[in-house]
Amino acid sequence: MPSFIQKLAACTERNRSALCIGLDPELSMLPSGYSRDADGIYSFNRTLIEATHDLVCAYKPNFAFYEALGYAGLRALERTLAIIPEHIPTIADAKRGDVPNTARLYAQALFAGWNFDSATVSPYMGPDSLEPFLDWPGKGVWVLCRTSNPGASYLQSLEVAGGTVTSPLFARVIEMVDALPSRADKGLVVGATSPKELRQVRARVPAMPLLLPGIGAQGGDVLAAAHAAATGPVVINASRSVLYGSGAGDTASAVRERAAALKDRINSSLYSFAESARP
Amino acid sequence: MPSFIQKLAACTERNRSALCIGLDPELSMLPSGYSRDADGIYSFNRTLIEATHDLVCAYKPNFAFYEALGYAGLRALERTLAIIPEHIPTIADAKRGDVPNTARLYAQALFAGWNFDSATVSPYMGPDSLEPFLDWPGKGVWVLCRTSNPGASYLQSLEVAGGTVTSPLFARVIEMVDALPSRADKGLVVGATSPKELRQVRARVPAMPLLLPGIGAQGGDVLAAAHAAATGPVVINASRSVLYGSGAGDTASAVRERAAALKDRINSSLYSFAESARP
Repeated sequence: MPSFIQKLAACTERNRSALCIGLDPELSMLPSGYSRDADGIYSFNRTLIEATHDLVCAYKPNFAFYEALGYAGLRALERTLAIIPEHIPTIADAKRGDVPNTARLYAQALFAGWNFDSATVSPYMGPDSLEPFLDWPGKGVWVLCRTSNPGASYLQSLEVAGGTVTSPLFARVIEMVDALPSRADKGLVVGATSPKELRQVRARVPAMPLLLPGIGAQGGDVLAAAHAAATGPVVINASRSVLYGSGAGDTASAVRERAAALKDRINSSLYSFAESARP
Repeated sequence: MPSFIQKLAACTERNRSALCIGLDPELSMLPSGYSRDADGIYSFNRTLIEATHDLVCAYKPNFAFYEALGYAGLRALERTLAIIPEHIPTIADAKRGDVPNTARLYAQALFAGWNFDSATVSPYMGPDSLEPFLDWPGKGVWVLCRTSNPGASYLQSLEVAGGTVTSPLFARVIEMVDALPSRADKGLVVGATSPKELRQVRARVPAMPLLLPGIGAQGGDVLAAAHAAATGPVVINASRSVLYGSGAGDTASAVRERAAALKDRINSSLYSFAESARP
């Protein structure tokens, strides 16, 4: 069985892409032609996947968008997962975290029940809340580190005392994740909306995979995200900016155009960075 | 419509109980006589509820135990919620947290879809990740503060710099929650496993409702939990220690005995505390 990181690297290489698309469809945002129900959500996802499967390194559905529609929503997620080509890694954006006895069951639900290749988890409850997720060989675990929302810094950037130096809380999260033994592959979630913090994270863990949300609708910085790719794997996620256009027109080709344009922007940023980094 | 806190106070008064039972049944732990599937889970929950509905102030199902069983598990949760008497408040132990646009959908799923009276949420992503939950009048929102697991202190007790004083991270979470405007009732989750921290939390927010997990299997301190009730509402949760006995025998009466004994221990702790606090 390949590791999660091997699967991610293979898809990144095959599609020459670091772009991940967040499969986060909302009823109220569906383009015309899709029914405003869970079936419409599934059909829209199918359009997205058919239009972009050769442009992405991963797909990342966020559970909230499906749980909000009840059983029918979960069924739409299940049908969506079934049509994602086998070689494309999946990321369960679930942000779960609980006491060990309970986290074990969340890991089972995400990795065995849903058969996701990887999942996002929340670090607040400490190392033993992450361990049950890390106990799954072949899977990937993305720990929230410095998130992409406007209020992220409120706790995550607090300066934490420690001997003679202080460091932001998110740096302690990195230390925690880095030190944890793992049978799964470990990664961190760092918003592309915070280029400075992203550089700080990358400097601390040059080789660790980073999942970078916030490109597009949240205003994230593609160049900063590309910089982070210099020493280790990155997965650059966009959702709303790829899923929804401003006007009418054929959804499939419009989605493909937006995804291709973003993939190209990322790749040319990667290239400019590589160029500028030359001696 | 009564507020969540009014509903909680009414049930606490009616049953003279601060005991909450965590409806967290595991297949492998079900007593004999229950089928080892989601139907068995539901039947066991029905036994628990019938045996304890006049002994509790709330019921708290944790989603992980149901999500681990897929659709059938969620259906067991739905059937369970349907037989909880209307006057008993429910707590969705979900520990969700996400960017605002997504948190909005989690809140919708928990408060409208599932119709829970309250839910637990994770603070790591900051104030804007909590706001969508706080926007629901009549509901309750329990923010993780100092959790009951062994690794809780790793991040939550880090000393955070701030002007001339430092304070533990969980105190910053309290400040954050306290300062947030809310249409819902706000509360904090504080493990009964950490009496010292529990006292610190209570000193900072004398009147805020506290949800205190960790009694029983996790070794929490009933007396410390009772102390916290002196100035504001508390909900003292036990799961495994009430759900599962050591031997055979009639499940319903054994569960009732364990719940009644724990309720009485809590109440006599409340009484001893009130006595010892007299001038």
